[in-house]
Amino acid sequence: MDPEAVSKAFVEHYYSTFDANRGSLGSLYQETSMLTFEGQQIQGSQNIVAKLNSLPFQQCKHTITTVDCQPSGPAGGMIVFVSGSLQLAGEQHALKFSQVLTVP
Amino acid sequence: MDPEAVSKAFVEHYYSTFDANRGSLGSLYQETSMLTFEGQQIQGSQNIVAKLNSLPFQQCKHTITTVDCQPSGPAGGMIVFVSGSLQLAGEQHALKFSQVLTVP
Repeated sequence: MDPEAVSKAFVEHYYSTFDANRGSLGSLYQETSMLTFEGQQIQGSQNIVAKLNSLPFQQCKHTITTVDCQPSGPAGGMIVFVSGSLQLAGEQHALKFSQVLTVP
Repeated sequence: MDPEAVSKAFVEHYYSTFDANRGSLGSLYQETSMLTFEGQQIQGSQNIVAKLNSLPFQQCKHTITTVDCQPSGPAGGMIVFVSGSLQLAGEQHALKFSQVLTVP
């Protein structure tokens, strides 16, 4: 698979998991993983899951608009830049979001 | 300097250079550097500068809204996520932009 296809599949998996059961995203993070969320830095799989679970909404649905990837580092890693919109249950308007996912 | 301060200073330098003379951004890129611009991948300092120079506007002014950084790799690198707005000369409304800058 080429890097574009790998990154698109990874992004699809990440956000469908987020929308279905964000608590299970912990398996995609390691102890050295870091989440920066609106300026706040959170490290480690457990802390990241706790942060995601604490977000003030329950049901949500991500729609992906763009996925751009670049190779990163000698070990075949990737930096993936994602933009899209986020529909929350009971809200009329979707929110725009963008996120960078890094694969070591 | 802490990583936050370094990344803010770097972002400030990058966009003030972009707005003053984007052709001189070449000194911030290496031959292995990659720019992904709206889905197009461009590699190498010279090609990146050619792409930036070919953008269909002359005068522009970036205003930075957020700068988030994370450490990257064992060699003290950083991934910096930037969002903000871009005012083009003669245009009434500013454009929103976001960009990821990586420092090896």
